[in-house]
Amino acid sequence: MKHFPEQLADRYRRFKYRHFAPNQEEYERLASEGQSPDTMIVSCCDSRVDPETLFSAMPGELFVVRNVANLVPPYETQGKYHGVSAALEFAALNLRVKHIVVLGHSGCGGVKACLDHEAARQTSAEFITNWMSMLDPARDTLIEKHGGDSSHTLLPELEREGVKTSLTNLRTFPCVQILEGKGRLQLHGAHFDIATGTLEVLDRESGEFVKI
Amino acid sequence: MKHFPEQLADRYRRFKYRHFAPNQEEYERLASEGQSPDTMIVSCCDSRVDPETLFSAMPGELFVVRNVANLVPPYETQGKYHGVSAALEFAALNLRVKHIVVLGHSGCGGVKACLDHEAARQTSAEFITNWMSMLDPARDTLIEKHGGDSSHTLLPELEREGVKTSLTNLRTFPCVQILEGKGRLQLHGAHFDIATGTLEVLDRESGEFVKI
Amino acid sequence: MKHFPEQLADRYRRFKYRHFAPNQEEYERLASEGQSPDTMIVSCCDSRVDPETLFSAMPGELFVVRNVANLVPPYETQGKYHGVSAALEFAALNLRVKHIVVLGHSGCGGVKACLDHEAARQTSAEFITNWMSMLDPARDTLIEKHGGDSSHTLLPELEREGVKTSLTNLRTFPCVQILEGKGRLQLHGAHFDIATGTLEVLDRESGEFVKI
Amino acid sequence: MKHFPEQLADRYRRFKYRHFAPNQEEYERLASEGQSPDTMIVSCCDSRVDPETLFSAMPGELFVVRNVANLVPPYETQGKYHGVSAALEFAALNLRVKHIVVLGHSGCGGVKACLDHEAARQTSAEFITNWMSMLDPARDTLIEKHGGDSSHTLLPELEREGVKTSLTNLRTFPCVQILEGKGRLQLHGAHFDIATGTLEVLDRESGEFVKI
Repeated sequence: MKHFPEQLADRYRRFKYRHFAPNQEEYERLASEGQSPDTMIVSCCDSRVDPETLFSAMPGELFVVRNVANLVPPYETQGKYHGVSAALEFAALNLRVKHIVVLGHSGCGGVKACLDHEAARQTSAEFITNWMSMLDPARDTLIEKHGGDSSHTLLPELEREGVKTSLTNLRTFPCVQILEGKGRLQLHGAHFDIATGTLEVLDRESGEFVKI
Repeated sequence: MKHFPEQLADRYRRFKYRHFAPNQEEYERLASEGQSPDTMIVSCCDSRVDPETLFSAMPGELFVVRNVANLVPPYETQGKYHGVSAALEFAALNLRVKHIVVLGHSGCGGVKACLDHEAARQTSAEFITNWMSMLDPARDTLIEKHGGDSSHTLLPELEREGVKTSLTNLRTFPCVQILEGKGRLQLHGAHFDIATGTLEVLDRESGEFVKI
Repeated sequence: MKHFPEQLADRYRRFKYRHFAPNQEEYERLASEGQSPDTMIVSCCDSRVDPETLFSAMPGELFVVRNVANLVPPYETQGKYHGVSAALEFAALNLRVKHIVVLGHSGCGGVKACLDHEAARQTSAEFITNWMSMLDPARDTLIEKHGGDSSHTLLPELEREGVKTSLTNLRTFPCVQILEGKGRLQLHGAHFDIATGTLEVLDRESGEFVKI
Repeated sequence: MKHFPEQLADRYRRFKYRHFAPNQEEYERLASEGQSPDTMIVSCCDSRVDPETLFSAMPGELFVVRNVANLVPPYETQGKYHGVSAALEFAALNLRVKHIVVLGHSGCGGVKACLDHEAARQTSAEFITNWMSMLDPARDTLIEKHGGDSSHTLLPELEREGVKTSLTNLRTFPCVQILEGKGRLQLHGAHFDIATGTLEVLDRESGEFVKI
């Protein structure tokens, strides 16, 4: 216990006093009845993008997966541990969420590593390189299209393409296909700009990201 | 755009107007300077346990991985996508975080599925069963120790054992071993009780969870 | 211009940059289409109780009257200027709001002056005494009921009785009677506690204020 | 309680959780010490013009009167209820504010009703017509000056003349005269344009409104 960072302990006490105590009845209800969120968010680990804050959420409202660059791998049953797939299965089959939002953001370190892949591959960043390789096809298409542009120019575009790739991958899961087909589940893409606070959402018809 | 849930759009607008706008300078600074959080949290997707709220965090302070049951798989270089490993690598090598906290919680649906594994295995919950199998050894040890106890009794104990398992797995990563050995990285375990708001942290010496 | 307080000018610039600029399209729309709020709030001038903040409101959502102690005088056509009546008429007939909320609060200086009326009457506070005399009947009933209790004890009760008096007065206006009778307008009472943040609302059946 | 609009209740809960909780210490201090704002604002009920937002105010900073068209009636001791006079008295004598700002705005429905007085007088808008008659002299002067101009052209000018009228009326109050004479109170006029976000303030020397 003495090892636990005092700053975190102090901030927890603040939460306990300020948030938890005045809302204890609600927490007790959530504890006894269990959670029943309507929405699942797939977002990035980035410390500047907290989905609960961005969507003014209350406890019990958002089921949240966070990994580097808010990626969803495609459906596959081989391999060992599939964290995102397990979360997706739990959200779709147990919680029966009605919406899944893939939320990208500006200045994403993971997407940047994908663009600087040669640099990254030569360092010891083996897991990042491997994880971000989900976006290699999207990256290669962008580089081909734009020629020798610097990663700086391509970053915002690849962040958005990454959201589209994750949505495509989501639709490779049988449970998503079935529920979306029945109109019981909707998929959405979004992109948050940290400097301006702008949220863009993916328009299905045009395939473009538009300001909310 | 018209497909995006109006409730989420409305809540985003309130964030933008009432939270982002008054703090825009800080967001602009974070956007231009990049993130430099001190702490990485591994926590659960559960909608009732938001680590930013629990630790009264400001934007830029916590690098957060969220998956079902806040698990860290052991180090392994085979297989395809390793989401947690990529996040860990990014946090340890790029961000050079000083603390990693594995945060469990009460009423965890993932841990419950691990205890009810026979039931779960017979349903279509293939990914959950597979993902939670990381805790099978801990579960079997508990069942052996307690005999025919119902899962209800074992749930709180397995939630805490799961945190310990993840800490053990974290230490199988070479970068964690090296940084912890040099005193540049500290690992912590914690468990949050939703009904009472109590946070317990793992005492290294005793191996027990104690109230903060 | 040089007389205008620099602090206010500075804070306006902050608003212009932080709130107005990013939401300019919405303001332009509101300017060209006019306002169409659903809700009218009658609240106090008190600097600690801003209804827009309390209800996380966006521009265009709340039509707000603020006077000392959030009072509505009864309908009467004599006398010269009837500020609240004019606002009520505008809200009910022009804007066709669907809800009117009378919002009281703890530590109300106006209600306190009504309780300390003897003290107030001997000072030069002629207008306050006169304005707050709307609550004299409610105050006298309370004092009779509680005997020689200090104003300290009666304050929270008279704040809530004041809300009820204003609701009663609202119902003396013909337009309110008609619209409420047709189900096109609903009246609500509420009380905000500054120290704890608790909002109580008036339950119509029981006539009691209950936590939200 | 079940009658209270769910939308308002939900927005209050978000205020409580996301705004009140993190600022609770400040609210507790304000509750125990009482308010001591420096500035009183007289502004309009219009839902598009929230003075706390416009001046980026914190709880405890602005004492706010809001009525139709931000009017201050002249000092008079007859008649029954004088809402603005009571607020003014409270602000000047009890709170000892240092500044009073009369804040007009574009597209003001009350001022428009004053310009369309013939139309208004024939409708049932008895209170509005009566309340806005405070600006009849200013209106008549403008119409005389401009000839047969449409109300559209005169509206922005009458909004600004209304602010001047209210400042003139403020100076009919003995307490204002005394405090202003002693240099302990300053009066200011301002006008906010909803479409452009421009704030103009009244220059005392020239009697003109100038951009801040």
